[in-house]
Amino acid sequence: MSSSTTADLTVPDESDTGQLLADRLLALLDLESIEKDIFRGRHLGDQNPNGHVFGGQVAAQALMAAGRTVDTERAVHSLHAYFIRAGDASVPIVFTVDRIRDGRSFTTRRVVAIQHGHAIFALEASFQLDQPGVDFQATMPDSPAPETLLAVTGPIAPGEQSDFEAGLPFEILRVPPADPPPARRTNLQWLRATGRLPDDPLTQACAFTYASDLFPGSAIVETLGIDYTDLRMASLDHAVWFHRPGRADDWLLVESESMSASGSRASVTGRVFARDGVQVATIVQELMIRVSSTD
Amino acid sequence: MSSSTTADLTVPDESDTGQLLADRLLALLDLESIEKDIFRGRHLGDQNPNGHVFGGQVAAQALMAAGRTVDTERAVHSLHAYFIRAGDASVPIVFTVDRIRDGRSFTTRRVVAIQHGHAIFALEASFQLDQPGVDFQATMPDSPAPETLLAVTGPIAPGEQSDFEAGLPFEILRVPPADPPPARRTNLQWLRATGRLPDDPLTQACAFTYASDLFPGSAIVETLGIDYTDLRMASLDHAVWFHRPGRADDWLLVESESMSASGSRASVTGRVFARDGVQVATIVQELMIRVSSTD
Repeated sequence: MSSSTTADLTVPDESDTGQLLADRLLALLDLESIEKDIFRGRHLGDQNPNGHVFGGQVAAQALMAAGRTVDTERAVHSLHAYFIRAGDASVPIVFTVDRIRDGRSFTTRRVVAIQHGHAIFALEASFQLDQPGVDFQATMPDSPAPETLLAVTGPIAPGEQSDFEAGLPFEILRVPPADPPPARRTNLQWLRATGRLPDDPLTQACAFTYASDLFPGSAIVETLGIDYTDLRMASLDHAVWFHRPGRADDWLLVESESMSASGSRASVTGRVFARDGVQVATIVQELMIRVSSTD
Repeated sequence: MSSSTTADLTVPDESDTGQLLADRLLALLDLESIEKDIFRGRHLGDQNPNGHVFGGQVAAQALMAAGRTVDTERAVHSLHAYFIRAGDASVPIVFTVDRIRDGRSFTTRRVVAIQHGHAIFALEASFQLDQPGVDFQATMPDSPAPETLLAVTGPIAPGEQSDFEAGLPFEILRVPPADPPPARRTNLQWLRATGRLPDDPLTQACAFTYASDLFPGSAIVETLGIDYTDLRMASLDHAVWFHRPGRADDWLLVESESMSASGSRASVTGRVFARDGVQVATIVQELMIRVSSTD
């Protein structure tokens, strides 16, 4: 993983929109400590679609809450979460942490995100001391370099973006689908934070978690070939396995595979690679998916 | 899914070892009700290796505890769990259920399995009313029929099985690896309960959950090509997506793919198909894996 460049957040350039958006992500992750194991997270209004809190934000903040109660020598290696109720972007979210277990090698935490007296989201995460072992991984798929795609597609014109998309602290590049399309329902996207983030592994993992809720939905849309406006989608659950250290502010290639859809649910696996081919993570998400015409 | 044959559990044949083992699985799933939302599960000693409770048993019992608090019209569609401490096979397990949410379409439950005052296992599961929608799935891989494999390999001689293996309520047939081996680290196993189980979907899902903790470990062993006795393995987490109704007492083909190993952890995906090609489930599990020689 590239860890050579040190982030410099001290003098943000006001004209650098990308860095401003990345700094806003860091502000979201800078939870207020209310009591031991109780944290409060704020919102940035225009980063939330339809008055609801973006799921990736809640997941990222919950992981940060968990990590704040864990020794920094232990890195997160997995999380499992359920989205329970739509979050309300007009009030803060309180995160309560349950210290499930502090073991010799592994630490387990549960975090519940609460608004208006109800759990809106619940996450369990496991952290581990660095321990060597056998090593293998998936093969990174062939893909054009992100710089090529930038040159080909260019940035989306501001007028064509929603406020949510314009405010995202991540840039996402779709790799044009292969012709003929692959036998498995896969597609490729490059992903990178819009500015530098601090080097600490927990912040990088939380930033990646924020982004990881963005592409399962778009993978399903591409698989189905339906106009996005015909669909109602909501994340149901979310799981991330952090296989190896990685940076959310350097290009990551996400190979999404739409696994199955039935019963108004669809599930997607995402294999995530750093530019050098190292597999940094795997994600699985199930979404509720309702096509308007059949509703 | 084949649902034509009705289970007949009324007159078990004492000489039918397979049905006796299946009936023991049903006894494990027949939780004692202690209070509202509190259940107690028993053990059958020789089904537990090394005095520890088999993880699949705890997961199956926890899912049953969750399901006992949910309207039978809602079927489980996913579960996420962490194995927190080794279970003690000498005392019962108490399962407490938290009714996280009862929504219009979805119901969420959390179950904590407790022994000696500590959580040994925690599971969240989501249940849903049957709702139609778009449909696609993975393609079932080619495989010889299970009857062919029975003829080729025959049952394992009793003397070569551990007590744990001999007491398992599932028969497992390994499909010989392809030559050359597949590019992805995949292997195939057929799986079926040793006797008939009741038709109700919750019992079938719990029985499948019991079995679903059996093959990630064996998939890793086959991928690494290491003698099982050189390894220490323990399940860390477990997730199951129940895509479509299925039967644990009819043959299921499990296509396991070893995804990644690093940091003394390995993760495995299992795609599960009924004989007719219908994808009934996907599993993901991460295991702790330590090779003795490097310990």
